[in-house]
Amino acid sequence: MLLSGVVPSNTTLLPTSSLIRAAPLRYRHVPAGGAITVPVLRRSAMTIQAREGAPVLDIEPQPLKLLDRRTKLKIAVIGFGNFGQFLARTFAAQGHEILAYSRTDYSDTARSLGAAFFDNQHDLCEQHPDVVLLSTSILSAEAVLRSLPIQRLRRSTLFVDVLSVKEFPRNLFLQLLPPDFDILCTHPMFGPESGKHGWAGLPFVYDKVRIGDSDDRVERCRAFLEIFEREGCRTVEMSCAEHDETAAEIQFLTHTIGRVLAKLDLKSTPINTKGYETLLNLVQNTCSDSYELYNGLFIYNKNSTELIEKLDDALDTMKKELFERLHGIFRKQLFESSGRRANEA
Amino acid sequence: MLLSGVVPSNTTLLPTSSLIRAAPLRYRHVPAGGAITVPVLRRSAMTIQAREGAPVLDIEPQPLKLLDRRTKLKIAVIGFGNFGQFLARTFAAQGHEILAYSRTDYSDTARSLGAAFFDNQHDLCEQHPDVVLLSTSILSAEAVLRSLPIQRLRRSTLFVDVLSVKEFPRNLFLQLLPPDFDILCTHPMFGPESGKHGWAGLPFVYDKVRIGDSDDRVERCRAFLEIFEREGCRTVEMSCAEHDETAAEIQFLTHTIGRVLAKLDLKSTPINTKGYETLLNLVQNTCSDSYELYNGLFIYNKNSTELIEKLDDALDTMKKELFERLHGIFRKQLFESSGRRANEA
Repeated sequence: MLLSGVVPSNTTLLPTSSLIRAAPLRYRHVPAGGAITVPVLRRSAMTIQAREGAPVLDIEPQPLKLLDRRTKLKIAVIGFGNFGQFLARTFAAQGHEILAYSRTDYSDTARSLGAAFFDNQHDLCEQHPDVVLLSTSILSAEAVLRSLPIQRLRRSTLFVDVLSVKEFPRNLFLQLLPPDFDILCTHPMFGPESGKHGWAGLPFVYDKVRIGDSDDRVERCRAFLEIFEREGCRTVEMSCAEHDETAAEIQFLTHTIGRVLAKLDLKSTPINTKGYETLLNLVQNTCSDSYELYNGLFIYNKNSTELIEKLDDALDTMKKELFERLHGIFRKQLFESSGRRANEA
Repeated sequence: MLLSGVVPSNTTLLPTSSLIRAAPLRYRHVPAGGAITVPVLRRSAMTIQAREGAPVLDIEPQPLKLLDRRTKLKIAVIGFGNFGQFLARTFAAQGHEILAYSRTDYSDTARSLGAAFFDNQHDLCEQHPDVVLLSTSILSAEAVLRSLPIQRLRRSTLFVDVLSVKEFPRNLFLQLLPPDFDILCTHPMFGPESGKHGWAGLPFVYDKVRIGDSDDRVERCRAFLEIFEREGCRTVEMSCAEHDETAAEIQFLTHTIGRVLAKLDLKSTPINTKGYETLLNLVQNTCSDSYELYNGLFIYNKNSTELIEKLDDALDTMKKELFERLHGIFRKQLFESSGRRANEA
C-alpha cells in the first residue's frame, strides 16, 4: 500500500536505485489543510513549461509517465539557516513542498525558493508535513527539538536529521519522540561549498533508526532518500555508531588540521608547491564552516577526544624522532672532535 | 664574448625568457679531451630524426636556426640517484651532455639516457664538465663534496646544487670551493612524482651566489637556468636565506603534516569527503619522498625548529579551546542540576 494522498493512484514507483533526473517542477503553492498536498502537473502544462524557459538540462526531457511516478513530499525544514536553505533549494527543485521555520526572519529567502516561511512552530506543525527535517546546529538541536509542539503533528510523521554527528540526534529522537513517529538519521557529507556544482558523487550516510513496517511508511522513507539518489549522491547505509567512529577521522581530523594550520597564519608565496597549496585550500575550506560546527563535532562525537590525543601523540613522537637524530649528529661531532684532540695531545 | 667552444660562432642566443621547446636531440657520445664537446646536429640529420620516430611534440618542429642557437652544456651529475636521474632525463632530452657519478652502479640507467656513467670521480673530473651538479641527499652532501677531486676540474667550473635547503650548501660551497669556481644554488621544488607530467608551472628557485663577471661565465649560468625556463618552470630568484625561511613553511610543514598523519594509519572509507581525500593524498605524496629528505629539511633548515614548535603550540591551543568548552557545558549542567535540587529541597 502506498502512502495515501502522496502518490497519484494511477502511477507506479521508480526503483530506488534510479538516477534519472526529472525536469525541475515549478513550485505551486497549494494551501494545505490536514491533507497532504501533491503539486502534480498535467501533461500539457509540463510540455509548455519545458519549452518556455525552464532550466536547461543535460539530458532530454523524460516522458511524463516517468515524471509522474515520483512521490512528492511536504517537508518542514526546522532550522532554515545556511545548510537548511542549501538542502531546501534542491528539495524544491525536485518538486517537493517546503515549509521553512527559523527564529531569524528568512521569509524572503523562503519565497525565492517557493517555500512557505513560518515564524511560529505551532502554525507549521498544523500544516502536517510528511517529513520534519531538523537542520539546526548540533549545539542547539536539543533545545529546538524540545521546543517543537510535536503534539500538533500527525502521529505518523517522519523525523529526519542532517547533523554531522549521528549517535547524539539518534538518542535525542528516541528519547523525545513518541513511538508513533518514524526516525531517519542522515548525514549529507557536503555543504554549500563542496556541493555548489551539484551533489554527484558526494557521500550521503543514513541509518533507518525506526521506520514502521507499513508500505506507506516504507515508501515515504524511500522517497526522501531518493532525493539524494536522484542528485547522484554516493548513498551509504551505516549505523549511527559506525558513522561517528568513521566520521571522527574523516571530518573531525580534517577540520582539526585545517583549524590548527589556520592558527599558523600561512601565507601564499611565489614558490608554493602543490602540497602546500593543498594545505592552504584545507585551511580555507574548513574555516569557511562555522566554529560551532567544529565544536559540535568534538563535543558530540565521543571518538573525537581519542583522535585528538592520537594526533597530539603522533606529533610528539615525530618531534622526538627529529630532535634525537639532530642531537645524535651533534654528539657524534662533539665526541669525534674531542677524540681528535685526545689523539693530537 | 661567448663561452669558447660551447656555442657555434655562427649562431646567436635565444633570449632567456624564451620557452620555445626544441625537439630532443639524440645523444651522440663524443670522446672528450680537455676541450668542451658540443653535440651539434646538422640540418639534414635533424630533419631525418624528426621524421623517423622522434618523440611526438605538441608543437611544430622549429626551424634549425632557432635550435642551433642553444648553448649545449656538459653536465656532471654527482649523486645519480632517483632525483639526479629525474633531472638528467630532461637535461639529456634538451641535448646536453651528461656525465653521471654514483657509488651505486647505475650504468644501465645512464646508458638508457645516453649519459656516460663513471664510478671513479677522478675519471669524471678529467672530462672537464662545464657544470658540476650536486644532487646527493642533504645528509651526505658534505662528505661527497669533500671527496671530490676538484683539483682535476678546470678552475672556472660552475658548481650547482639542487638540495631542498639552501643556506647549508651555499656555506659548504663557499667554504670548500676555491674562489675561481662559480656557484649557483638552486631548488627545483618538485620531484619525480609532482613533475611526472612535465615541469610547466612548477616552482624553481635559484640564487646566483658567485658568478664571475666575464661573458662566458654569465652565459654558462644563463644556459643552465634556461633548461628550467624551457620546460615552463616558474623560476624565482631568491636569496638562500629567504628560501630557507619560506621553504620551512612550504616544505617542512607540508611534510610534517603528511608524516604525522601517516602515524595515525588513516584508512580510505566509503564515506570519504573531499577534504579527507586531500589528507590521504598528502600522506601518500609526502611519504613517497625519503625519510632522509624529511630529516634533512629539519636538521639543515634552522627555521624548522621554530615551525614545529609553533605547530605544537597551535594544536595545544586548539585542544584547550575544545576541552574548556566541553567542561563549560558539563559544569553548567552540574550547577544547574544542583541548583534545581536546591530549589526542590
